[in-house]
Amino acid sequence: MTSKVDLATFNCSLARTLGIVGDDWSLMILRDAFLGLTRFGEFQQSLGIAKNILADRLERLVRGGILLREGREARPVYRLTERGRDLLPALVALMQWGDRWLSNGAPPMLLSGPDGQALLPVALRTRTGTVSPDRLDIRAGPGADERTRRFLDRGPAG
Amino acid sequence: MTSKVDLATFNCSLARTLGIVGDDWSLMILRDAFLGLTRFGEFQQSLGIAKNILADRLERLVRGGILLREGREARPVYRLTERGRDLLPALVALMQWGDRWLSNGAPPMLLSGPDGQALLPVALRTRTGTVSPDRLDIRAGPGADERTRRFLDRGPAG
Repeated sequence: MTSKVDLATFNCSLARTLGIVGDDWSLMILRDAFLGLTRFGEFQQSLGIAKNILADRLERLVRGGILLREGREARPVYRLTERGRDLLPALVALMQWGDRWLSNGAPPMLLSGPDGQALLPVALRTRTGTVSPDRLDIRAGPGADERTRRFLDRGPAG
Repeated sequence: MTSKVDLATFNCSLARTLGIVGDDWSLMILRDAFLGLTRFGEFQQSLGIAKNILADRLERLVRGGILLREGREARPVYRLTERGRDLLPALVALMQWGDRWLSNGAPPMLLSGPDGQALLPVALRTRTGTVSPDRLDIRAGPGADERTRRFLDRGPAG
């Protein structure tokens, strides 16, 4: 079977997000955009990916409103939009997981402000404090369709 | 060019993470594992993906230490390991981005504890408070190789 399931049609915000940035190269291009790279050649040199793949992913990120293509058509500049910048916590969470489980010491470290405070691990929080994943509950929200409601109502599988 | 660049060899924790979970289906399988699904048939029914792709992704998640395969070989059960559960903040951050930018109201909502407090948006923090992405700085950490050091020392591109 090669039929492609379209994640954008899922009643799930994670699926919809992954429909735009759900592949390794898109997220690595975003990493480089956060590091200040803006040009096709810079991304290509940094990541070492094939030009056709890079062109495809940049196009998808532009269509998804995550990067803005500016400047001369022959030599465009790609910049993060507000929507794109808003992906930073997700990117950092993925990176920190790699720091913790796959790397011997963080290869690059993220620091904040002139006094260089270390970033804490991204955590789940409510207004009153940090949340343990075990205490997390999932409910049908205002955007849930019938199928999602039924799925969530059945409770966790055994 | 079809040469495959191996993300696991990058001096970057994000790249290494994406080498294991850097595709849409792996992250959707993880979502379902967090929702309590454990069996091949359950994942297949929930996601509607081809069996060969599901088998491949489950195998990769098991090899990456994110899922544990247990029970009878003919009818195994897949459970999140500690390392797997530790991906929840990243998954939630991606989901919340979709809630904010792609969905009309959160399809499912995450709540914490018996009193059902809403989860706050995942944010970057230091010991003294929330960090604005603009005030984030990146430095070579203890695990940085020479190439990474040179790259980070050159400062952001113009």
